[in-house]
Amino acid sequence: MEQSFLAYLRGRTRSLPSVAVGIGDDAAVIDPPASGLGAQQVACTDQIIDGVDFDSQSQPLASVGFKSIAINLSDIAAMGATPTAALVTLALPADNATEIAGEVYEGILEACGQFNVAIAGGDISTYDGPLAISVCLLGIVTDPWLRSCAQEGDAIFVTGALGGSRLGHHLRPTPRIEFARRLRQHADVHAAIDISDGFSLDLDRMLAASRVGAELDMDRIPLSEAAEAMSANSGRTPLEHAWSDGEDFELIFTTNESDAAKIEALSADDLSVKITRVGSVVGRTGLWKRITGSKLERVFPQGYVHGETDG
Amino acid sequence: MEQSFLAYLRGRTRSLPSVAVGIGDDAAVIDPPASGLGAQQVACTDQIIDGVDFDSQSQPLASVGFKSIAINLSDIAAMGATPTAALVTLALPADNATEIAGEVYEGILEACGQFNVAIAGGDISTYDGPLAISVCLLGIVTDPWLRSCAQEGDAIFVTGALGGSRLGHHLRPTPRIEFARRLRQHADVHAAIDISDGFSLDLDRMLAASRVGAELDMDRIPLSEAAEAMSANSGRTPLEHAWSDGEDFELIFTTNESDAAKIEALSADDLSVKITRVGSVVGRTGLWKRITGSKLERVFPQGYVHGETDG
Repeated sequence: MEQSFLAYLRGRTRSLPSVAVGIGDDAAVIDPPASGLGAQQVACTDQIIDGVDFDSQSQPLASVGFKSIAINLSDIAAMGATPTAALVTLALPADNATEIAGEVYEGILEACGQFNVAIAGGDISTYDGPLAISVCLLGIVTDPWLRSCAQEGDAIFVTGALGGSRLGHHLRPTPRIEFARRLRQHADVHAAIDISDGFSLDLDRMLAASRVGAELDMDRIPLSEAAEAMSANSGRTPLEHAWSDGEDFELIFTTNESDAAKIEALSADDLSVKITRVGSVVGRTGLWKRITGSKLERVFPQGYVHGETDG
Repeated sequence: MEQSFLAYLRGRTRSLPSVAVGIGDDAAVIDPPASGLGAQQVACTDQIIDGVDFDSQSQPLASVGFKSIAINLSDIAAMGATPTAALVTLALPADNATEIAGEVYEGILEACGQFNVAIAGGDISTYDGPLAISVCLLGIVTDPWLRSCAQEGDAIFVTGALGGSRLGHHLRPTPRIEFARRLRQHADVHAAIDISDGFSLDLDRMLAASRVGAELDMDRIPLSEAAEAMSANSGRTPLEHAWSDGEDFELIFTTNESDAAKIEALSADDLSVKITRVGSVVGRTGLWKRITGSKLERVFPQGYVHGETDG
């Protein structure tokens, strides 16, 4: 990393949580939290690129920086884990590289401050290409929430309200870190995933990993105001937006019936965000909705598949 | 990460060490090694970009992939740490993306296999830009070797032979992981750094971080065959190459005199690579060489400074 930018970063990260050895040595050294004896380490990475995942012409770079951290925090939350430190890699267009790096870091520092994450290191290059931000986020967990552990008979919940994130929310999502921390105190979560590519698509992925399916209560899927607003011009219903829009960064998770009853009795304040029960896990694979009394009809996941157009 | 490439990767990584939860969930979960109670976690990241750090027209992509892991392993070795897992992020030119990813991964898998590193996750995007590979490498350490702990009176050592890596060695370096592991058994290392930007420049960085300087035995700086070969055409002496050429990926480290005597008595086989004592740490900052009896002359670090031309 460039020496002068390193010095700037060292100064700016002083208000963030610190690690044992941070920016400036060959590698960062991170102490396990005191309570972390026997805990496991979690790590994820996600990159966003100008022209592919965001548009620097219409979106503030600070928001893009915030998002680069938030999307990784969302993955950490989906594991039921606590974030510790981020490593940030920037590939900067040679023109205005320093100015761009500064603006991006404003948002990165804001997100790290808000979610108590240290910046442990990173790398910066300038090149002949678009702005690309790659973040590696580290954390700690005991009993991680996997995609593969949903069980027949589980209740399926989702946080928040879905759809229409492209109206603005997608740049400043609230990764469900605090929610995950509180949920752990009340329930034994079986499986979880965050919504990055679309509610139905990510739900389907989680259930496929668990080799089970879902019976969904379509009327209960929580519709966001943005989904209603987009529906006015998109030719799609709010439910269609909630069903398939990407980048909600809400969590889908399952628990057994007894824990489900417990957490349904809690308020949004108790858990930091509203949760909605949207269905139950069934043994038969695929997504199903009830038509009449005993008749089920298959419904198909839709969303953003990487390398394809919107589904 | 694209689903089909994910499936390919899952298959190809079966022969590598595995982590508790690997590719395919929201984040990877990594068990601390059984011996790791009280150990700290290390993490570093380095990206390489076509046209900046390598040239895909003249260099095999498998070697570039190997290098992307090796340069990060070199940082892990410089901390005296043991690598555990890598997260690999690729930004691929849209043309031939799958073919390029496949070739790059050949080298990544080779390096991970050779140095016992799991591939815990990653991200892949295609875009309108050059091939960029960003690796985040995780490891574990007890008593990390820092740049800042060199002490007056320490002996200064370097591994291997220096200079001329551009003749080919720089694409297939041997990160000094095994050396670091063995050295720990014989000596209490005070400070260490790996040579990425040039022997004198990285030595100077380490000493500056420790607020000390060095008296160097210039005649003892180990010259590589490649430095001799390059010297024939470059108009620079082999010593000048050894002094300032980047990407040697050897280690510089310091120990007290008593440990220095112990490790100088060991063979290259004992430590996995030859080591050479090149000087001593002095209280006065800067790099110095002895001219006659008691007269010292200052020598200046040279090497690759990011954002500037070769020094």
